[in-house]
Formats: sequence, structure tokens, C-alpha cells
Amino acid sequence: MTSSTSVTLSQALLARAISHHGSSSTSDRVSLSAALTLPTFSGLKSTSSSPSSSSSTSSKLSRFQRRRLGANRPVRAAAVETLDTTTETSLVEKSVNTIRFLAIDAVEKANSGHPGLPMGCAPMGHILYDEIMRYNPKNPYWFNRDRFVLSAGHGCMLQYALLHLAGYDSVKEEDLKGFRQWGSKTPGHPENFETPGVEVTTGPLGQGIANAVGLALAEKHLAARYNKPDSEIVDHYTYVILGDGCQMEGISNEVASLAGHWGLGKLIAFYDDNHISIDGDTEIAFTESVDTRFEGLGWHVIWVKNGNTGYDEIRAAIKEAKAVTDRPTLIKVTTTIGFGSPNKANSYSVHGAALGAKEVDATRKNLGWPYEPFHVPEDVKSHWSRHAAEGSALEAEWNAKFAEYEKKYKEEAAELKSIITGELPAGWEKALPTYTPESPADATRNLSQANLNALAKVLPGLIGGSADLASSNMTLLKSFGDFQKNTPEERNVRFGVREHGMGAICNGIALHCPGLIP
Amino acid sequence: MTSSTSVTLSQALLARAISHHGSSSTSDRVSLSAALTLPTFSGLKSTSSSPSSSSSTSSKLSRFQRRRLGANRPVRAAAVETLDTTTETSLVEKSVNTIRFLAIDAVEKANSGHPGLPMGCAPMGHILYDEIMRYNPKNPYWFNRDRFVLSAGHGCMLQYALLHLAGYDSVKEEDLKGFRQWGSKTPGHPENFETPGVEVTTGPLGQGIANAVGLALAEKHLAARYNKPDSEIVDHYTYVILGDGCQMEGISNEVASLAGHWGLGKLIAFYDDNHISIDGDTEIAFTESVDTRFEGLGWHVIWVKNGNTGYDEIRAAIKEAKAVTDRPTLIKVTTTIGFGSPNKANSYSVHGAALGAKEVDATRKNLGWPYEPFHVPEDVKSHWSRHAAEGSALEAEWNAKFAEYEKKYKEEAAELKSIITGELPAGWEKALPTYTPESPADATRNLSQANLNALAKVLPGLIGGSADLASSNMTLLKSFGDFQKNTPEERNVRFGVREHGMGAICNGIALHCPGLIP
Repeated sequence: MTSSTSVTLSQALLARAISHHGSSSTSDRVSLSAALTLPTFSGLKSTSSSPSSSSSTSSKLSRFQRRRLGANRPVRAAAVETLDTTTETSLVEKSVNTIRFLAIDAVEKANSGHPGLPMGCAPMGHILYDEIMRYNPKNPYWFNRDRFVLSAGHGCMLQYALLHLAGYDSVKEEDLKGFRQWGSKTPGHPENFETPGVEVTTGPLGQGIANAVGLALAEKHLAARYNKPDSEIVDHYTYVILGDGCQMEGISNEVASLAGHWGLGKLIAFYDDNHISIDGDTEIAFTESVDTRFEGLGWHVIWVKNGNTGYDEIRAAIKEAKAVTDRPTLIKVTTTIGFGSPNKANSYSVHGAALGAKEVDATRKNLGWPYEPFHVPEDVKSHWSRHAAEGSALEAEWNAKFAEYEKKYKEEAAELKSIITGELPAGWEKALPTYTPESPADATRNLSQANLNALAKVLPGLIGGSADLASSNMTLLKSFGDFQKNTPEERNVRFGVREHGMGAICNGIALHCPGLIP
Repeated sequence: MTSSTSVTLSQALLARAISHHGSSSTSDRVSLSAALTLPTFSGLKSTSSSPSSSSSTSSKLSRFQRRRLGANRPVRAAAVETLDTTTETSLVEKSVNTIRFLAIDAVEKANSGHPGLPMGCAPMGHILYDEIMRYNPKNPYWFNRDRFVLSAGHGCMLQYALLHLAGYDSVKEEDLKGFRQWGSKTPGHPENFETPGVEVTTGPLGQGIANAVGLALAEKHLAARYNKPDSEIVDHYTYVILGDGCQMEGISNEVASLAGHWGLGKLIAFYDDNHISIDGDTEIAFTESVDTRFEGLGWHVIWVKNGNTGYDEIRAAIKEAKAVTDRPTLIKVTTTIGFGSPNKANSYSVHGAALGAKEVDATRKNLGWPYEPFHVPEDVKSHWSRHAAEGSALEAEWNAKFAEYEKKYKEEAAELKSIITGELPAGWEKALPTYTPESPADATRNLSQANLNALAKVLPGLIGGSADLASSNMTLLKSFGDFQKNTPEERNVRFGVREHGMGAICNGIALHCPGLIP
């Protein structure tokens, strides 16, 4: 692969993302031609537009500016305060029910899918996307966005509903109606290469949390390398929702052990503890204390007992999780699968099949939902509509920060930029050793090591390691130390004897930004 | 497969076992011809000889008879008391060092292998095989033997040394000298089909503990089905040694979660906590609290702080583990990898390579070992020599018990016998539904279910389940309930979302006895 190929790749990624956005008329969208002429910095592309032009968003802008001031703690406090006062509980409830019914209606129309999880997890989903996460729906690839991973990927209608409400062009109303249809952008499990806004492809249980550990590792690594006392240029969170099935899979324990070991404080995982899986109550196969296990793995553990309607409980848990900076946090949220369905809630029948017309009606009555299928009430729509402008403002703010950073720290900025865009430095291939038919024979693993070490010098995003076989498969990058809790700037990752987890973590690292090459 | 094929299989297994035993002159061996004429009951074969003919074993016989009286607790107490008084610590130490040097010498001769684990785990190995476990070295397939699994299979010289000392004909001195050689019975990782006395093939880390969970499940299941208030005809333990690598692999967490869920009280796992793996100190990738995690998984956890010389500590831990009957036990044993090597102990260099002549000499001096390579001192040999007769006595005693059982419980005895031998009942294939080209089309999973349910009625050893997909892949045996902690007699196993663990557990079930068909 050559440098120019890579630039093309990053442009292609953006072009693809934009072409997926459909026909939105939002003013801050980038045109495809603009994307193709801009050379490299895809992560920053769509932010050249002005952060805001309407008066209705200006007050919120100041709120976001407050949120992003200084250290983590005051930001969080401000966020939660603001939310409690600006958004009435009744509107939150309405928004949460909108998410529930978008999922119910889409599964019903497709006559297949998993309505149970979205109905149970809608409250945490709402709070994350509406109140907590920082993202720009008009540029899903903005570098410093918070990442969200739905490890329980079968519940993807939750994520599609949230992307839709948040204003992502990848999930418009017609996409919700095309759920699980051939060629749609809303497949039966989330696919990052199909749906901008989806960070990683999930579905195989346990993989998503592993990818998320990779995303959080990437953030911690880049933050350690590029942040300066006067500029936290890399600063975002990774949120995950995982279910009982994810928890049972061995890979999730492998990566949770590593996340604890590495002290990934900005990884916050919601464990949707609904006690139901395909074969019925999880009591039949899963009676361990997940809390105790995660404490053993070095996580901070919080239990939200009322995940169905306990909005303040969820908010408080996130606040607490963010205050714990030296460990990842597991927020165990007790929910009711299929919440709101009078006859199917809390049973396996709502896990993976459409409710059926009769039960949909009953659920509409039960939750007081008089609307047509796929309807988003005006006040809910209006409430969520601010995210486009707010997201653009966040990105613009970060761009300004980066411009400052670039002035002060030219070299670091150039290196970080190349990692964000995936553009390989010119002439990188000249660093490779040359071999001729006369070169002495050597084991391929030794040749590999010589090449890896040569590349590590010229590719700032090359990071990797081995599953306890570095001394055997010769993957050690000799000029770097070990990526560890207190040395996250280093580039040799020690995965321990966890091959499956290693693979999935590397996928997460690779999907963090195109210039990270695990 | 037909009934007669199956008989042949069980005979072939025994024939193979015997042919592997070599040219032993022990009087209680079965001749190959006898094995081939005896129809079915391979698990009991070699016990037709009288339990003892020499006066030297008669006193020990009464000790073993005491050990096996009534409930578990008094048996254990008797065993430990007896051992403390009959075997002096100095002799134990000598035996332990014999194990260490057999491993050192075999790895040295092969110039490859893993001496570190055997040197660290020799004390627990000695105590298990010399003091605790009930087995018959002259019939490695005796049904009611305790099972031992070396999950950290790379340390297999530990197991070969123990099988050798215990008098298994599969590992004679020439086999130790042939360690890791082409065609030998002592390959670089234990293979159950190569080496009688090895229960399951191990090496891929984490698999062994999973197999062991299957073995312990099989015991619990058969005990629940066939034991009577007046006759515990199925009554044995499963012991495992697993290392840091096993603990890191996700599969071990999957199966440990299930073992805790099922309450496999007769599963006792030794966690060799030596803090060293291939890439160095486990601190680089493994800092979780294993103790806390296992407590969360529902295990009883004991910590033996001095695994190198704390014999009484190890004995006490086993005693405590046996007293806990409702949960499996993890005995965390802090050991020193390569214990005794003055320059390489406690380092990764002793994990997977020969010590080298110089360091072997230094270790001989350090541990006061004046003997030639592969030498077993006479007093050690003499001490271990009792196991052949004792094992035969244990088996004979069990045979007598079975004969009693057979008189009282004819049907159950016949069924158990068919499970032990793997002989399928005559005409079992007539139970299968018949299909013709005119039969209506149906999904293969439905046809599979019809056949499984038909077979379950005629095959008493058919047991199985699904990884949370029973309702989808149609594996439910409708005439039976769920195998659970308090209903272990049932035959539907609920594995949860743990496909990898399920596969390895089923291997363990299948290797428990030939008539269990998972």
C-alpha cells in the first residue's frame, strides 16, 4: 500500500459517509466534491461551516461551551444540572416512548427483529444521546466525538431510533421503515460500514464490548501522546450497552480484564440486566454475581435498580462513572425486557420476534401512545433538533482548539493529523529494509520483526502486540515501551493469553481512526 | 453406528489401553485375549483378579476400606490423618524432588519442553497422586476413579512423572526418556488417546478446565441418577491444575461460571499462581483479582500461600475443599516457577526451555540431588509401589459394591453398565422414525429434534443441550427436565451463550465414559 492509496482510502471513507447521508438540506453538510478536493483531514471536514446561525441555538451553545471547560468534573456537573432544568421529565418520557415505538413499529413492519431490548434500554439510550454524548450528527467521523457501541447488537433498533432522533442523515424515516430489508442502511445488526454513526459492527455477542475496549484504548493512548497541560486535544468517552449474552461469552471477560488492567477510565459500560435470553430466564444458566466479578476485574461497579423509569438514577450513575478516572465503570441497569408490553414484557417472547398487531395495540394503550406507526411527536422532534447545530458547534470549537494546538505544537499536530486522517507520511516505504535473492535466509517472524520495527519509526499510528507470545512471534517494537495503565503513550500492547479478545480489541483500535494501525 | 460397532469400540479402547501397558508382569493385568472375549464392561475389566495377595498390602487395604466408608467427611479425615502419620516429610520432599528432576531430566534430554511448571507444582502433584486420588494404575479406565486434568498442558512432564511413579504402564522409564520424541507415549502436551492415565487432551489453554467441568458434570449427573441411599455407586472427584494462561482465556471464565451455577462440588481446581508467562511477569497483562472473580462465579476459594514446601497447607486446603459440597473450589496455590533452580527460578526463561547442563547441575546441588538423570531413589520407588495393589483393591471393592447394587437394583445397574461400557441397547435403531421420499418436507432442525427425542428414550446416556438456542435449534429432549444444581439427574443442559465452553464441556462429558453421548 502506498501513501497515495491511503489518502484515497480516507477520502473514500468520507465520500461514502456523505453519500449515505442522503438528501439532507442541512446547511453545514459538506458536498461530495468538497470532500474529494480536501486532501487529508477527514476527521475535521464538515466543520468549516459556521457553528450556528439561528438564535434558537445560541443559548445552548453557551451551555456546551460550559460543558467543555477545563477538567471532567465540572463539565459533568454542568451537564446534569442543565439537563434536569431544561428538559421536563414528561418530555423525557415522551422521547423515551418515541424510541420504544420506533423500535416496535420497525420490527412489526419487518415482521422480524428484536423489540425487547430497545423497549427496556430506551431510557439509558435517550440520556446518552440526548444529554451526555458529544457528537456531530452531520459529521459522524468528527475525530473527538464520544463513541457508542451497542454490544447487544440484535437490539439495533435502539441505535437506529437514536441516530434518527439525533439527526444523522444515515437513518431517516424511510430507513426505519426499511429495517431489515435488502440494501437498507438499517440491517438486522449494526454495520459500521453501512450506517454512518455506527462505530463498529456488532451482533456476535461479546464482540462489541471488546471493540469498545479497543476504542477506549485508542483514546487513552492518543490522549497520552498528544495532550498538553494547556490543551486536552484528545478527550472523549466510549459508551457501551451490553446484555446478559455478552456477559456470558468468554471474550467479554478477557477484554474486561484488560480494560481493568489498563485502567480505561473513560470506558463506561451499561449492563442491561434484564434477566431474559432466548431460552428464557437467565436463571437457567447464569447465576454468577456479575458485580463481584467486575470488581475482581478492577472495574468500578454501580447498580441502577430502576432502569425503566429511573432517569435521575441513570444520570447520577453516569456522573459517578465519569468521576472515577482510574478504572472503567460498569453500570448494571436492571431493566424489563419489552417494557410497556402488557402481556409480553419480561418474557423471552419479546426478545427476538415482533409483538404482533394485537400486542402492539395493547402496548400503545398501556403507554398512552395515540400516534401512528413511525410518528415522532412534534415536541420530541423539536427537542432533539438542536443536536445538529450543537454538534457542529462542538466540532467547530474543537477545530479552533486544534488550530491553537497546531500553532504551539507543530510536530505533534502534524503527527496527530496523520493519525486522524490515515495519510501515511511521504516516502514511508523507503524505511523498509530491502532484500534480494542473495539476502541470507531467516525465519519469517524475524523478517517480520525487522519490518515492523522499521515501520514503527515512520508510521506514528502503528501500535500492536501479542497474546503472550511477543518473544516468540517477534512483534515487539524495540524503540517503544509497553502500553500500560501508567504508560499509555507506549505502543507495545500486552494482551496476555487472550487471542480472541486481542483480535476484537484490534478491530476497535483500527476503527477509532484510520491512521491507527494495530 | 450399530450396537455391535459400539461394543467393538469399547473393546478396542481397552485393547488399546492394554497394548500400551507394555510388558508389565503385574499379576492383576488382563490379557488381551481376555479383554476381547469379555463382552462389554470395560470399565470393570481388570478387577476380576483378587484384590490382594501379599501381606504387605493388607494393612493398607483396611485403610482404604476405611477411607471409602459412608459419607465424604469421615473419609477425608481418615485419609489426611493416615498420610500425616505414615509418610514422613523428608520422604515427601524426596518424592517431590524426584518429580522435579524427572521433569528436568526429560526436558533436558529432549532439549525442549516446559520444566518450570512441574518444578513449581510437584508438591501438589505429589499430594494428589500419592495421598488423595483414588485410581488403579493397572486399569486406567476403571469407572469410579478420580479424574485429573492438567489444564496447563505444556507442563505435562508433571503428569508423566506422576503416572510413572504411580505405576501406570503407559509411562515407563523409557517413555520418560522418549519425551517429545516421534511416536512416543509422552508427547509435548498430554494426549488422552496416546497415554492411558491421561483423561483429556490439553494444551490449548483454558480447554482443560472446560473438559474437567464436563467430567464433573458427568459424575454429578450419573450420581444423581444411579446412587441409592444405601449405595453411592458413583462417587469420585475431578481435580485440575490450571495456570495463569488458562485463567486469562475467556473459555475458562465461561465454564467456571457454569461450574458455579451447577454447584459442581466435586470439582477441585488448583490455580498455579506463579506469576510468570512467556512474555515475563503476569503483571504486564493480568492484574485482576482471580479470587474475587471466582467468588463472583460462585466458587469456594482457598489460598495456599506456600505452594513450594507447604505440604500441610495443601493437604488442609484439599480437606476444606472436599467439605464444601455445594460449590466447586478453587485452590489458589502460590508457587515459584522453576522452584529449585538457583538462577532461573521465578523467571520466564524456565517456562518453556530446557535449563541447560550448567543450570541442571546447579539445581541438583541446590536441592541436594546426587542422583543420575531419570533416577528414582529406592525409598521413593518403594513408597509409591503400593499404588498398584491399592488401586486394584479399590477397584475390587467397587466391583463388589456394584455386584450388591446389581442384585438390589437390576434395571438401574443394567442401564449404568451400558453407560459405563458404551454398549448400545439391542435394537436401539428401531426407535428412530422412518422417512420415505413421500414424507412431508420439514426443516432439518425439526427432523433432528424428532430423532433426538426418539433416541433419548432408548439411549440412557444421551445428554445435551444448547447455547441459549434450544428453542431455535430444537435440541430440547422433551421427556426430560433441565440439568441444574438441584436437578442433576435431568438431561437438558443449558449452556447459556457460551458456545466455546459448551464444545469443550461436551468433550469432557464424552471422555467421562463411552456411554455418555453429549
